[in-house]
Amino acid sequence: MNNQAPIGIFDSGFGGLTVMKAIRQLLPHENIIYFGDTARLPYGTKSFETVTQYSIENTSFLVQQGVKAVVVACHTACSHALDTLHEKFSLPILGVTTASIEDIVHHSPSGKIGILATRGTIASGNYQTHIKKLLPSAEVTGIACQLLVNLVEEGYIDHHLTELAIQDYLRPFLNQQIDSIILGCTHFPLLQHLIQKAVGPHIQVIDPAQSCARALKELLTDKQLLNPTALSPNYRFYASDDPEKFSALGQRFLDHPIHHVEKNT
Amino acid sequence: MNNQAPIGIFDSGFGGLTVMKAIRQLLPHENIIYFGDTARLPYGTKSFETVTQYSIENTSFLVQQGVKAVVVACHTACSHALDTLHEKFSLPILGVTTASIEDIVHHSPSGKIGILATRGTIASGNYQTHIKKLLPSAEVTGIACQLLVNLVEEGYIDHHLTELAIQDYLRPFLNQQIDSIILGCTHFPLLQHLIQKAVGPHIQVIDPAQSCARALKELLTDKQLLNPTALSPNYRFYASDDPEKFSALGQRFLDHPIHHVEKNT
Repeated sequence: MNNQAPIGIFDSGFGGLTVMKAIRQLLPHENIIYFGDTARLPYGTKSFETVTQYSIENTSFLVQQGVKAVVVACHTACSHALDTLHEKFSLPILGVTTASIEDIVHHSPSGKIGILATRGTIASGNYQTHIKKLLPSAEVTGIACQLLVNLVEEGYIDHHLTELAIQDYLRPFLNQQIDSIILGCTHFPLLQHLIQKAVGPHIQVIDPAQSCARALKELLTDKQLLNPTALSPNYRFYASDDPEKFSALGQRFLDHPIHHVEKNT
Repeated sequence: MNNQAPIGIFDSGFGGLTVMKAIRQLLPHENIIYFGDTARLPYGTKSFETVTQYSIENTSFLVQQGVKAVVVACHTACSHALDTLHEKFSLPILGVTTASIEDIVHHSPSGKIGILATRGTIASGNYQTHIKKLLPSAEVTGIACQLLVNLVEEGYIDHHLTELAIQDYLRPFLNQQIDSIILGCTHFPLLQHLIQKAVGPHIQVIDPAQSCARALKELLTDKQLLNPTALSPNYRFYASDDPEKFSALGQRFLDHPIHHVEKNT
């Protein structure tokens, strides 16, 4: 595999750009191809079979573009499809959820851990199962916060409705002496300040994108796939629905301009 | 065409079941096939091209099932794709929006009309254009209320978050002396009591599903396609994602049990 080949990232839409943001900060010389499946988003409310089928199609598309590794930047796709993708494809595939599970298990003093995610991710039990594999004594409470996805996509980032929704959703955490919370959906890092405010300063709030970027750097180093050139990287963006909307809304997630988006149907 | 053939209805998901509810109340002997494109919902945030393509595919599926007429029960699909469907297919096709536009123009005393709909429907200008064609002096104010769709799908029907969201969205109407509001999204009839409460009793709130059912009855009468038998009707439901979820969530919209749902991918 050519180590100058791009890293492929896919997500159901825009949220995975928060993962791309963490990756480009840690690996500033890597070329990246990002695919957002905006014509079929969201994945978080859809079934195991449908999300798995979409994930296979998205990975095939990235493989056709010649990527050297794939990052599944959608927590729901990781929860439902990561094992299937590892079986079907031979290139390195990294899920955004995996590294954060190791991180939280190592950093939670009490093992009382909270997960905020989509309905699909919570229902899959993926986080719960993997945390308990590494730390059998862990007590994991998952809360499906579907509306937070919608509120972020509507741009209601610092809005009283969003604060109220967060307070409503997080109420079950308050009596459980949880010490750590995973933001188990790529939209939630945009609400990290509100979530931190709602739970107070003594609970650590972990963004899996940071863990994922570190794990990707390790993986590429191990496999001698780090891009050795120090040129400015090339970023390519594909969306399955309106490229202009992707460009406009995506910048909020990537925190960086998106000049050109190609349509992939 | 066989007048005992079913009526076909499609929508992006569950919302169109509020249209089916109105149709089955007015036409209790008609057989109905309903298709909810739940694997690709929502349509309201997606582009003209994507929604048109999905609408063509959905209509083709219903035609293959031998329906005698098609009701497009999704306002976004009507706004984007109704003209294309009329060009491509020869059977009678009725959009949920069309009849309500005639009704509101005849029943609005001042011509100051409000539309509550998805972003796609408002951006298409469909309601605004068609109302002005029939009543050039009309003053039409459209408000995109995307979050109300999500709140209904999350079951937050009588929830303080939904009341607050409605108050926020409807604020622009309050100073405009609007006398009539169209519920331009199939999810909104479930919030009609909250919307009526927010605007007060002097503003009429119109549910297009009722207008659509009346127009469908007229159409079938004109074309001699009314089912002459008085047997209990046969209802068939298809969804492109999880049939069980469709069955569980759909009953809230149809206000009637849904016992069996087939998957159509």
